[in-house]
Amino acid sequence: MQKTTGRPQLKENLKFFLTASMKGISQVLLIDNAVTGFFILLIITSTSIFLGIITLLSTIIGTLIGIVGGADKESVTQGLFGFNSVLTGIALALFMNGPYHWIIALLGAALAAILAAAMMHAMKPLGIPVLSAPFILITWFTLLVSYRLKAFTLTSELVPQDLARWKLDTTGKVDWTEGAFYGIGQIFFLHETIAGVLLFLAVFWAGWRLGIFAIMGNLTALLASYWLGGEHTLIFMGLYGYNGILAILAVAIVFNDNKGWIQPLLSGILAAFLTVPLTASITTLLLPYGLPALTMPFILSTWIILGARKVLPKL
Amino acid sequence: MQKTTGRPQLKENLKFFLTASMKGISQVLLIDNAVTGFFILLIITSTSIFLGIITLLSTIIGTLIGIVGGADKESVTQGLFGFNSVLTGIALALFMNGPYHWIIALLGAALAAILAAAMMHAMKPLGIPVLSAPFILITWFTLLVSYRLKAFTLTSELVPQDLARWKLDTTGKVDWTEGAFYGIGQIFFLHETIAGVLLFLAVFWAGWRLGIFAIMGNLTALLASYWLGGEHTLIFMGLYGYNGILAILAVAIVFNDNKGWIQPLLSGILAAFLTVPLTASITTLLLPYGLPALTMPFILSTWIILGARKVLPKL
Amino acid sequence: MQKTTGRPQLKENLKFFLTASMKGISQVLLIDNAVTGFFILLIITSTSIFLGIITLLSTIIGTLIGIVGGADKESVTQGLFGFNSVLTGIALALFMNGPYHWIIALLGAALAAILAAAMMHAMKPLGIPVLSAPFILITWFTLLVSYRLKAFTLTSELVPQDLARWKLDTTGKVDWTEGAFYGIGQIFFLHETIAGVLLFLAVFWAGWRLGIFAIMGNLTALLASYWLGGEHTLIFMGLYGYNGILAILAVAIVFNDNKGWIQPLLSGILAAFLTVPLTASITTLLLPYGLPALTMPFILSTWIILGARKVLPKL
Repeated sequence: MQKTTGRPQLKENLKFFLTASMKGISQVLLIDNAVTGFFILLIITSTSIFLGIITLLSTIIGTLIGIVGGADKESVTQGLFGFNSVLTGIALALFMNGPYHWIIALLGAALAAILAAAMMHAMKPLGIPVLSAPFILITWFTLLVSYRLKAFTLTSELVPQDLARWKLDTTGKVDWTEGAFYGIGQIFFLHETIAGVLLFLAVFWAGWRLGIFAIMGNLTALLASYWLGGEHTLIFMGLYGYNGILAILAVAIVFNDNKGWIQPLLSGILAAFLTVPLTASITTLLLPYGLPALTMPFILSTWIILGARKVLPKL
Repeated sequence: MQKTTGRPQLKENLKFFLTASMKGISQVLLIDNAVTGFFILLIITSTSIFLGIITLLSTIIGTLIGIVGGADKESVTQGLFGFNSVLTGIALALFMNGPYHWIIALLGAALAAILAAAMMHAMKPLGIPVLSAPFILITWFTLLVSYRLKAFTLTSELVPQDLARWKLDTTGKVDWTEGAFYGIGQIFFLHETIAGVLLFLAVFWAGWRLGIFAIMGNLTALLASYWLGGEHTLIFMGLYGYNGILAILAVAIVFNDNKGWIQPLLSGILAAFLTVPLTASITTLLLPYGLPALTMPFILSTWIILGARKVLPKL
Repeated sequence: MQKTTGRPQLKENLKFFLTASMKGISQVLLIDNAVTGFFILLIITSTSIFLGIITLLSTIIGTLIGIVGGADKESVTQGLFGFNSVLTGIALALFMNGPYHWIIALLGAALAAILAAAMMHAMKPLGIPVLSAPFILITWFTLLVSYRLKAFTLTSELVPQDLARWKLDTTGKVDWTEGAFYGIGQIFFLHETIAGVLLFLAVFWAGWRLGIFAIMGNLTALLASYWLGGEHTLIFMGLYGYNGILAILAVAIVFNDNKGWIQPLLSGILAAFLTVPLTASITTLLLPYGLPALTMPFILSTWIILGARKVLPKL
């Protein structure tokens, strides 16, 4: 950045900063589009003003850390320092309790940007993106802190359980409408049909191809989890669907040079399908710690396919 | 590959494919020899026709994924896309239940080849082989799926246990003959003395040096586990021996440039010895999840020695 | 090394060997100073002659493995093959029981040097030091072995617990003097105020800047753990402090090119602060296995900041 003075420069810097911050929100869906980011911010805010503020502050904090820390401008502009902070801020605000949980959420958001930088460095030689792995690590570790430090308190949702005494219960009502729209909402921890509909619209705004694939990913994961005998209470809350949406977007479009339909669809559906058993196994692994799987199934599925593609280029 | 037409080309391709598939079986023992592979296939089939078919289909699936995915021909020819699939197919066929468990086994075999590709990419800069790590990860994750998806059911063998209530019981009969031959059979999940004898012969066929070292590795692990006070029921089932055989072959011969005797023997016996405490600790780590250690002790032991050798060349 | 004969060469080799061995002790505190190392050896020996002997033998074993294995002379000279062995030897000697636990401790020390070499190779492309990670892995795995092999027995200190039945109890007396000096002692598993005072002096001997930062790190971690509501019994035993000391030294001085005060202090205090929630979460993760956190919080905190600095150079 050359250093100039005066208001035009200030205005330009502000525009750069706002664009980067909004892209920090859209990048949660792997989308590089400030308008989509702003639209998502509105959807979150209309569901909960508190969550909206956390989202806005988190993306600002992540982006600022990128800028003040001296990251290369391109990564910052694409929102790559914002999205892990957004997810961490929202997750910690929702899973933690007590009067100061919002401070923990925002500190977590800051830390997520720092860990994102470290992981970018570590994974650079592999040519594989870090995705939302920093968010997951910071969130898991922060939730575990609560068992040892009084200032951290969990909501009653998260309960460690013994795998030896676990019984699978797949009964529960079937509601395909909720299933269809709760998945994409779960990415931002929203639980309303209308929020899901609007989020799909936000994706279509960024590109109709993205929208179609998002629907295909959701469908793949929903049907697969139903057909393989998953718990209805989870499936129709969208908890088996959201990873499928993210995985198909990453594998088929965002990190794929092939602009055709067949290879993207096949590898994307494979990635979306894989998130279903991965959700099942990761949830099992985390049971004794009472932790949520978050977007880990999407991350593992995407890393496997993107990594394999370097050796199997036709995948 | 140049493209030609006609039957000679077809015949050559078929020969290439069959060789690669058989080497996919021999590579389970780190051996690059199609005849040994075919011999092992016969041994497995004579123990169980079902397992034989799974083995054959798994190596074919893995090899096909390498070819169709566009991997470099040399890796495919050496059977490097087959062996993780073979192990995964057999393990899932044995540890899972229900009418469709063979489908899960074959899908697991396919996935193992894809994960193998991803891990080859990730470990290439280190110059360290992936060994059977992809098999282990796919198998562990698939077994864990069963706690959440009804289509996956475990055999009654695998039971999660609480470490706090674990009591070590080393009593049990001592049977050195079984101990001597069950170990190598365990690599292919076979539990018969005759299968063990024949597998040793298959190794000697590929090279008498390989055979001698295999015996040394088995002996090292057997004696160390007995002397350190392991459970007799495990030791004489060969469950402390098979990792020692694999580790000595990898460290002393397959991934070793030194063709002499002293350095290979010393580092190989160290590697075989290390698999004994590693088997103990990995089994403990997996206890709450009821998962088997599989070949993980061999992998960790081999990775440590091969990695250390890059910095300590005389090891 | 040129090969010459005669006593001058022998004397020089002995001097090189002794310096490297003493630096192996000082490197536990990230300090490259043989006198400090010798001073620490005296402090340990004056607390327990048994521990002093273990410390001396462990650093000799680690250094010898570096030399005999053929490592580059510079790493050996700096004591980089000794410090993981020192820590492993002491930890295993203290956490294990039985007549031969000292043999296990020394074998663990040897293995730590080998794993250190492997990890140096693996982390070289990242430009991030392995720190004491090899010590932690060897110690954790060795402690877990005791559940399966009779020759390994744990002291009664380490008990696996169920997280679902865990209750946080932060009551206990407040003793800031013990808190202030027990932390640095904990690094060497010493529990005496006087040992802590002397260890601070050993650090000041190597550089007054190191000493001042060590005090700052201790203070940061102590106050943060008290303020966030940690268990008094742990805080005033120094169990929340020692990772903060190591983290600030690593991040602010040893692996930092900036010789000023502001950036080192800020990033160092951040690193020291981070060890507090990390201690809490790692202890929680390890609860079902009854394992101690050791220096893992320091390692993770330091890796995050050093890794992030490669992308955020102003951190």
